[in-house]
Amino acid sequence: MNPQPLRPVIYDEGRDVVRVLDQRRLPSEEVWLDLASCDEVVQAIKDLTVRGAPAIGVAAAYGLALESRRGAEPARLREASERLVHARPTAVNLAWAVRRMSRRLGLGPAALLEEAHAIRDEDEAACRRIGALGAALLPPRASVLTHCNAGALATAGYGTALGVVRAAVEGGNPVTVFADETRPFLQGARLTAWELKRDGIPVTLLTDNMAGWLMAQGEIACVVVGADRIAANGDVANKIGTYALAVLAAYHHLPFYVAAPWSTVDLATPDGSAIPIEERGDEEVVTLAGQRIAPAGVPARYPAFDVTPEPLVTAIITERGVVRRPFAPGLAALAAR
Amino acid sequence: MNPQPLRPVIYDEGRDVVRVLDQRRLPSEEVWLDLASCDEVVQAIKDLTVRGAPAIGVAAAYGLALESRRGAEPARLREASERLVHARPTAVNLAWAVRRMSRRLGLGPAALLEEAHAIRDEDEAACRRIGALGAALLPPRASVLTHCNAGALATAGYGTALGVVRAAVEGGNPVTVFADETRPFLQGARLTAWELKRDGIPVTLLTDNMAGWLMAQGEIACVVVGADRIAANGDVANKIGTYALAVLAAYHHLPFYVAAPWSTVDLATPDGSAIPIEERGDEEVVTLAGQRIAPAGVPARYPAFDVTPEPLVTAIITERGVVRRPFAPGLAALAAR
Repeated sequence: MNPQPLRPVIYDEGRDVVRVLDQRRLPSEEVWLDLASCDEVVQAIKDLTVRGAPAIGVAAAYGLALESRRGAEPARLREASERLVHARPTAVNLAWAVRRMSRRLGLGPAALLEEAHAIRDEDEAACRRIGALGAALLPPRASVLTHCNAGALATAGYGTALGVVRAAVEGGNPVTVFADETRPFLQGARLTAWELKRDGIPVTLLTDNMAGWLMAQGEIACVVVGADRIAANGDVANKIGTYALAVLAAYHHLPFYVAAPWSTVDLATPDGSAIPIEERGDEEVVTLAGQRIAPAGVPARYPAFDVTPEPLVTAIITERGVVRRPFAPGLAALAAR
Repeated sequence: MNPQPLRPVIYDEGRDVVRVLDQRRLPSEEVWLDLASCDEVVQAIKDLTVRGAPAIGVAAAYGLALESRRGAEPARLREASERLVHARPTAVNLAWAVRRMSRRLGLGPAALLEEAHAIRDEDEAACRRIGALGAALLPPRASVLTHCNAGALATAGYGTALGVVRAAVEGGNPVTVFADETRPFLQGARLTAWELKRDGIPVTLLTDNMAGWLMAQGEIACVVVGADRIAANGDVANKIGTYALAVLAAYHHLPFYVAAPWSTVDLATPDGSAIPIEERGDEEVVTLAGQRIAPAGVPARYPAFDVTPEPLVTAIITERGVVRRPFAPGLAALAAR
């Protein structure tokens, strides 16, 4: 493990800026950006400078604290909250964090910064608890497949799916990771590979079409992914490709685990059909690393997320506990805690 | 349809060179290369300048004709045959074409060129027959998912999977195509998109992780792919990712069709476990369009092919007929024709 924990969103109280690690430029460059207004935070969320459901929640909270400390009145903070909530539609953590901040808009800048710090600290603590609970589910020396990046970079720190991996390794179980590269944004190749290598955890990269075949060859023990929203019935919205992995895992009788903080659970959404799926522009698909890969004039699809129906999910790992099917009563019970 | 048929491997008798369309540089550049020796053909097959199981068979045949016309004696031609056969291990058409040429090594250059022309002409004719037989299986206005490139570029001309699409369109059924981009070499984004656009057939690009979700949304009617080798029991080796698509198609109760010339059927291989799967270097995975996408020092896997077990295959479409399960007797019956 790298002794310096990786925290992709921090608040600089001296200069009143939200500092974010620019995830568009990893792994080739490690660049920190200063965001000096809530609208800069909105833009950073939209253009994927900061991404990952819990991380964008933390960034949004700090964005509101920042505006307040720079003199914005509650009315202006409410407008900023609206823009933040609509920056991206699928991850519920964004709305959750903004809602939590909104209850304190009238209490002044100190209270808002304190609340944002609490959201950040609680998220990292949740990840560590998720890690401990999830690590107990991994067989010795398990080869874990993950998709996208549900790591320290996607959270306040430590990670959800990768938190499970980190906790296993810290606990003496030398698990290894297969990382789907996760086109088009390459979160796996760029971010998951980078942060696991930083921590000395063995990671092997796959293109998104290889996992099924490696499952058939017995090379994968289980799948662990994060989530952008979990509905009351246990349906899981996550990065496009997650659903196909869940079908493949079920076909090969492999466990399919979803690791996410409780802030990702949205009991107000009854099932996956009610989760809005963001469709992004196809420019991100037809270009790669800035170069056009497809002929001009050929369109592409880009649903950024998909929904995995709950029958394909083996267990949902939250900091409040591990839930198995039937998920609806299990999640309801955890909500009451 | 473009009035000028696309033929990626031709023989220039005036200059005695094998002319190939450089498939590494499509779609940004349309560059034809002159291959002036059999070893240049071997290299072009190895480095994917020419790819696609039937197309590399045609290139190999012309390579031997070329050597003979440039004065090589049968002993040298036999050595060249060995190098050709071992250029790539999975596609059986390569060995099939070389074996067919080998029977005529002593008959002189004219007979060898005639045989190579016959292999080329028969392959294109086979593709047209495959197209007609396959087109009859597509529902009206079907949305067809394909993987990699099993088109004119992968054959002598017209294509296998894309031959089915072309024949449907020519027959008045306005089918549309979803093309998996097919990492790492991007045959779908670069080649399938290019040749379908050239023919005015609507094609929409997908990253390799999207097909499952679009199947779940009811946006895909069937899957049609090519093959690099079909075993006697009906197991199909094809581009990595094909197996996962077959599992996903079965899960969504969608037909999964394999279109290939009879030269791809290898009755000497009892089942898929006996098919050698080429593992290529991981440099092709960690770089994209010449740029490194993953952190230095992170390894990747690159099995270039996978094997789809025959229970997942709805039908195999060859120029000799359409075979359904049980495949072993069906293929044996066609072999006797």
